[in-house]
Amino acid sequence: MKLSNVLYESVKEIWQSYLQHPFVKGLGDGTLPEDAFRFYMLQDYLYLLEYSKVFALGVVKSKEEKLMRRFAKMVHNTLDGEMNIHKTYMKRLGISEQEIQNAKQSLANRSYTSYMLEVAYNGDVLDVLVSILACAWSYQMIGAHHKQLPNALKHPLYGEWVWAYSSEQYQKDTEQLIALTDELAEGISLKRIEQLKEVFVNCSRYEYAFWDMSYQKEL
Amino acid sequence: MKLSNVLYESVKEIWQSYLQHPFVKGLGDGTLPEDAFRFYMLQDYLYLLEYSKVFALGVVKSKEEKLMRRFAKMVHNTLDGEMNIHKTYMKRLGISEQEIQNAKQSLANRSYTSYMLEVAYNGDVLDVLVSILACAWSYQMIGAHHKQLPNALKHPLYGEWVWAYSSEQYQKDTEQLIALTDELAEGISLKRIEQLKEVFVNCSRYEYAFWDMSYQKEL
Amino acid sequence: MKLSNVLYESVKEIWQSYLQHPFVKGLGDGTLPEDAFRFYMLQDYLYLLEYSKVFALGVVKSKEEKLMRRFAKMVHNTLDGEMNIHKTYMKRLGISEQEIQNAKQSLANRSYTSYMLEVAYNGDVLDVLVSILACAWSYQMIGAHHKQLPNALKHPLYGEWVWAYSSEQYQKDTEQLIALTDELAEGISLKRIEQLKEVFVNCSRYEYAFWDMSYQKEL
Amino acid sequence: MKLSNVLYESVKEIWQSYLQHPFVKGLGDGTLPEDAFRFYMLQDYLYLLEYSKVFALGVVKSKEEKLMRRFAKMVHNTLDGEMNIHKTYMKRLGISEQEIQNAKQSLANRSYTSYMLEVAYNGDVLDVLVSILACAWSYQMIGAHHKQLPNALKHPLYGEWVWAYSSEQYQKDTEQLIALTDELAEGISLKRIEQLKEVFVNCSRYEYAFWDMSYQKEL
Repeated sequence: MKLSNVLYESVKEIWQSYLQHPFVKGLGDGTLPEDAFRFYMLQDYLYLLEYSKVFALGVVKSKEEKLMRRFAKMVHNTLDGEMNIHKTYMKRLGISEQEIQNAKQSLANRSYTSYMLEVAYNGDVLDVLVSILACAWSYQMIGAHHKQLPNALKHPLYGEWVWAYSSEQYQKDTEQLIALTDELAEGISLKRIEQLKEVFVNCSRYEYAFWDMSYQKEL
Repeated sequence: MKLSNVLYESVKEIWQSYLQHPFVKGLGDGTLPEDAFRFYMLQDYLYLLEYSKVFALGVVKSKEEKLMRRFAKMVHNTLDGEMNIHKTYMKRLGISEQEIQNAKQSLANRSYTSYMLEVAYNGDVLDVLVSILACAWSYQMIGAHHKQLPNALKHPLYGEWVWAYSSEQYQKDTEQLIALTDELAEGISLKRIEQLKEVFVNCSRYEYAFWDMSYQKEL
Repeated sequence: MKLSNVLYESVKEIWQSYLQHPFVKGLGDGTLPEDAFRFYMLQDYLYLLEYSKVFALGVVKSKEEKLMRRFAKMVHNTLDGEMNIHKTYMKRLGISEQEIQNAKQSLANRSYTSYMLEVAYNGDVLDVLVSILACAWSYQMIGAHHKQLPNALKHPLYGEWVWAYSSEQYQKDTEQLIALTDELAEGISLKRIEQLKEVFVNCSRYEYAFWDMSYQKEL
Repeated sequence: MKLSNVLYESVKEIWQSYLQHPFVKGLGDGTLPEDAFRFYMLQDYLYLLEYSKVFALGVVKSKEEKLMRRFAKMVHNTLDGEMNIHKTYMKRLGISEQEIQNAKQSLANRSYTSYMLEVAYNGDVLDVLVSILACAWSYQMIGAHHKQLPNALKHPLYGEWVWAYSSEQYQKDTEQLIALTDELAEGISLKRIEQLKEVFVNCSRYEYAFWDMSYQKEL
């Protein structure tokens, strides 16, 4: 059994609960209040900055050039790809450059990114990968789910979000991340699997808290 | 103005709210349900293990022998001093060695310790000190407050807790921590002060969440 | 006085000694034995992998988005720019992909990169910048010096090296690195300046040891 | 086969070369010039400060309380045990407190400690243990060897050194370190063993360089 299967089994109920949460639900059926989305967009922007630091620690912890390049690419993709989607959105939502500069991570947001960074500092490349995977993979799952909903892709505000996280490119990137995780996990011990499961479950719980924090607009 | 004064001003309202919280209040007037205290004791034990890692990073980040020794002493005091109080308590509360071994930090607990560890990994000795100070200092504040309450010290279960955190030794240790922080902060810039305030406020908010998590017995 | 001036003053004699060293001299007048250059090229390739990890720690330690992007760009420039020059060279020198995969950093090489990484792990973005600056800046100095030598640029084997490190682009990149260092150093204390000087002097000594290790082909 | 046996096999020739080195030889037969010993004592003092930071990173990287306590004990033993022997010696050698405060690690010394710290920052508890083991174990080997030499224990200046590193306590501590390493290494992969061997070989080479640096009194 692949590590990714073990990880998935350990969180599938938590992930299902995302789809029931009014924020995530509202992204798909258009019922999400715009101010909550605005709050989310700004917090997610700050999140991605820290997220890319986790990848940067992947560069540092790599023992092989090929792997270093993979992580360096992820830093680049986050800072210059995913974050550009956010910038376009923030412009549409009337979030000024000044507002972005002054924004601070909410406590729930920081708890999540501190956790990933702590895991990455303490651990190895596999810890890095598993700690970032919950976000990437569950977004891809939500994207794939919402894409099937009538009108989700056509929604004037949220359609672009659904489109981005259900795109072929995003799916391919996520699959490569999963494949890399499974490749590096070959031959690891049961004890190690338990540790990584704990990381994956914690990150999945932080994902839920992030949706909830966004819906409540809680700093 | 000393850094410690600036820090104190930035959190005094948050700290006052601790005294209103049913957990902290209940420790002083004896109304705290025993199962919440049991839950707390186990979580705080796990917290202290991570707390001592923050001190250990202080050893690593120190550029002077004297400072290294200070941090090494704090690691020792935590692992072999404060944690022994917990061990005695856990025995009285019927918490077995097995239960301790199997216990996991709750998410709120881990969020707090991950945050301190991230700050310590990223920062310098002053970051280390400020991140640990909110816990030490607010406990001393609560201890001093509860000590004045009638019967608090005599309470069969919580009296020892009040005693420990209102003892002369604990007060002295905390004062030395504050003095050390102020000493190392001499001449720092306003920008740096803002960063440290943010750390202190965040840790103080995590303290509140810790009391609440304990009262709710929330994993 | 700018930090970069202080740093330069502290190492100018060490840097002058590079120009007297038979390896560096030989790069300019064509007297360098090819096998020493081959040895150097492979070791420098391994060096750059670790060097880019120091930049990656710059990403992690940055508190501002703009700075994160600067460091992320440096990771990219090293892995996908400077290292490509090395790859072209290694092909010309008949160094196979297999040989690169099996190569290990020499002890002098590893000492240098471990030092930079330790400084970066323990310190802040300024430590990161100062630790990488000795290499970048002294190469630019050597490039500018050698460019003036008759025939240096036309040498069939070493001309390309001289060209790369005396190019306008390389000079511009180095100047930006120096400017960034000076910008971040504004208002630092004398004690801090002394610490950074120590880092710069140590790195400059490691640079000399690197040239010597290459000339002796010492693993 | 135990990891410690594999490690030992990989360095036994390097370790034999210590016994041939005039510094180590001179410690045993009394021919070591006192100024070299004085130089060594001061550098070794600075070394131990950094060495105890490697142990402190062991505290941080530990996932179990028992292991944390082991590493915390080692920090304590180094700072308050082994370093006291040095302090006594330094007093006898007329090294003032002022001289200790102003002393800087030589480049060879710093290369060694930076390497261990980099390995510890990047790695896990096993990396920490293997990186500190070369020093501890080879000292015990030298101590055991020198103890057999006629008059080595009775030498007015070096006798105490030989006594300290051939004492039953030191032997017991080293054996416990080896046993812990073997315990944590159970079930590791061949690839991992190769990585750890590389660390052990590098540290053993740094040990040789340390003896040589001391003999040459090379800053």
